[in-house]
Amino acid sequence: MTRRVLLDVTPDRIAAAARRVMARCDELARVTAAPGSIERVYLSPEHARVNRLAAEWMREVGMRSWQDAAGNQMGRIERASDPDPAAPALMLGSHLDTVRDAGRFDGIVGVLMALEVVRLLRLPGESAVGLPFPLEVIAFSDEEGTRFGKALLGSSAVAGTWNDSWWTLTDADGLTLRQAFLEFGLDPGRIGEAARRPDQLVGYLEAHIEQGPELHRSEQPLAVVSSIASARRFQLTVEGEARHAGGTPYDMRRDALLGASEAALAVERICAAEHHIIGTVGQFEAFPGSVNVIPGETVFSLDLRGEFDGERDRVWDAISRELDEIMGRRSLRWNAREIHNAPAVRCAPLLQDVVREGITSTITDTAEEPPVIFSRAGHDGMAIGSIADVGMLFLRNPDGISHHPDEAVSGSDVALGIRALAESVLGLAMDKN
Amino acid sequence: MTRRVLLDVTPDRIAAAARRVMARCDELARVTAAPGSIERVYLSPEHARVNRLAAEWMREVGMRSWQDAAGNQMGRIERASDPDPAAPALMLGSHLDTVRDAGRFDGIVGVLMALEVVRLLRLPGESAVGLPFPLEVIAFSDEEGTRFGKALLGSSAVAGTWNDSWWTLTDADGLTLRQAFLEFGLDPGRIGEAARRPDQLVGYLEAHIEQGPELHRSEQPLAVVSSIASARRFQLTVEGEARHAGGTPYDMRRDALLGASEAALAVERICAAEHHIIGTVGQFEAFPGSVNVIPGETVFSLDLRGEFDGERDRVWDAISRELDEIMGRRSLRWNAREIHNAPAVRCAPLLQDVVREGITSTITDTAEEPPVIFSRAGHDGMAIGSIADVGMLFLRNPDGISHHPDEAVSGSDVALGIRALAESVLGLAMDKN
Repeated sequence: MTRRVLLDVTPDRIAAAARRVMARCDELARVTAAPGSIERVYLSPEHARVNRLAAEWMREVGMRSWQDAAGNQMGRIERASDPDPAAPALMLGSHLDTVRDAGRFDGIVGVLMALEVVRLLRLPGESAVGLPFPLEVIAFSDEEGTRFGKALLGSSAVAGTWNDSWWTLTDADGLTLRQAFLEFGLDPGRIGEAARRPDQLVGYLEAHIEQGPELHRSEQPLAVVSSIASARRFQLTVEGEARHAGGTPYDMRRDALLGASEAALAVERICAAEHHIIGTVGQFEAFPGSVNVIPGETVFSLDLRGEFDGERDRVWDAISRELDEIMGRRSLRWNAREIHNAPAVRCAPLLQDVVREGITSTITDTAEEPPVIFSRAGHDGMAIGSIADVGMLFLRNPDGISHHPDEAVSGSDVALGIRALAESVLGLAMDKN
Repeated sequence: MTRRVLLDVTPDRIAAAARRVMARCDELARVTAAPGSIERVYLSPEHARVNRLAAEWMREVGMRSWQDAAGNQMGRIERASDPDPAAPALMLGSHLDTVRDAGRFDGIVGVLMALEVVRLLRLPGESAVGLPFPLEVIAFSDEEGTRFGKALLGSSAVAGTWNDSWWTLTDADGLTLRQAFLEFGLDPGRIGEAARRPDQLVGYLEAHIEQGPELHRSEQPLAVVSSIASARRFQLTVEGEARHAGGTPYDMRRDALLGASEAALAVERICAAEHHIIGTVGQFEAFPGSVNVIPGETVFSLDLRGEFDGERDRVWDAISRELDEIMGRRSLRWNAREIHNAPAVRCAPLLQDVVREGITSTITDTAEEPPVIFSRAGHDGMAIGSIADVGMLFLRNPDGISHHPDEAVSGSDVALGIRALAESVLGLAMDKN
């Protein structure tokens, strides 16, 4: 195996970069709408605050920085030879928004690592990089979909796949996405300006913690990502009849909560029997929600992921048939509204190669090839895949915990990841030269 | 069978009384915190408004009216011979609070029918009744427990069984019961003044719609109630681990929602196998409640009723053992907090007799004895039973729907009920003379 090492920096610089990433993850964790836990949703005051911090840090490494029409914070540094603000750029990045009661690394660490790669590759004393392409860093504004129930809003705007039907999505307070744009100071009419064309991008590279246990179980710090899971999300409604809890015998009940409970268990049973399918019911609420009233309506979510679109759709069909049976037996009605549908996105072979080389030149104490895994979690690359080649590098996540305050990554793995990501960029530069 | 008819009024007066009850049910339905549906909870502005209306209507039939220290609205009319404000009274009534998205009759119709009975029994031109005892009408302030999760607050205060631990119960906004008392203009320190002594009461009689289908199924308008169900309520918490929905394989999940779903189905399975037990999960919420996060905690309610305390407790033990099994198998923790425990209350034999006679003298087109049923639903009589004999009369409820906007009772059944209740009072007067 070749051990092509392109990055010429001291271990001390890499260690300092990793320390800065870890400290900034802590700093960003303090920007939260929920004191004591981390919650930073799209178009919130916390979103504005982290964008200002990101802009400051982008400028610190010599980049121009601006907020785009969808609230994504962008940075760009030109190439030293033949600088051209219109030249296609390699985009690095991830997202800064979070789920509720989140960890401090999901998304965030990828943005901060990208900034350290720019710092390492920047020519001393210049606002330029010695590469055949400019670098951009993007901090996506909405990947999780926490506030409006629709994921990848920020990256969809960049991909030019924004859908005008989304403007009427509402948050928990009934505020529409359009109103939230206006309150944030963004003009909904200019959303199209966030879109990038394929000819403006060399590709998109993202580092992210693995949101699962595979690297932890195999004791590997870094992995090449082969593809991002195919995902569909549904909001399901079960309708029965609200009646008095004491007086209604079982043979007269049409209990929407029991139907939905059976449905949640059916999702687990059907998906667990498959190899590459994960289905999760994360939201579940019964109405009217009184202790002494039989629920007349239950609303719950279904998040369905698979490595392949066809497999995922076949499982959804099986779940639908099972729901027909359950609800028919219980005299309930059910319906599903699809709120998200993203086909599997395969990482570009060239970018898989450069990430593999980047990891190989970083992890020098083994003769093994780096692990290649598919991401069960969604990422901004799912949207960006429609306008650019996508590559991803995963960092080991102790015990695989994510979307939780215990989410973790070690500083030493971040150091390895920064080096591997920088090597990947240099590898791509060699290829493009 | 004897057809002892004591009430000397024209059918027109009874019909007018029933029309007034139906119209006032409509009027009270408009006093709601949720426009378009009915919601009137303890210590709310709507509670204050219906108390003012009840006071006005009590005075209209010659009663004194006052609000007691727990927000119950009281009315009293003395006996004509030997009037004595300290004489033990026969208390009639029910409650004016509602569940969320309620019907317009549960509780309400019983208060309004009691007022019509006073009107029918009042001596012409006098603020007195020609009975051996004064009459009181009580509009209980909290029977449902909608706001603070604890039922029978109003009647517990009257029964002198108020528990000081309740002061720290909170509503959905985090407001404590103590704060709500102060905001409503009540003094928590004076709650004891609402308590009545056994020697102040001749008994308590309540008319209520059946909250079940038995009278409807047997085509009978009225029934004698034999006892009020034994009830326990629990708030159950299942704890697992919140993790990323995509990245966490099934063998690493500790999904609190799936454990709680199994629990809800186990409650149904265990209770449905019993004759006189009903268990209902009415509230159910998963946390953190994000579409892409495995629920780390689920909180749900259990309402358990039975005709006998021992049977009910045996079923709770069976449910507990089943929950141990489910949660153990899923590596989840669970706990239950009991929020309500009311033993079965048997209606007093004398009051069952006078209600039976009252119905018999009203329903003259059959030789059959009136039906005798036990109430699966809880009532204020459960609390009042500790200080007075309790009797209840049920009205037919088409299709048995209650705690729902479709809750109904017919005007003609209300007319029969008013006559039967007045006959019951007169029958009791004969007994006490």
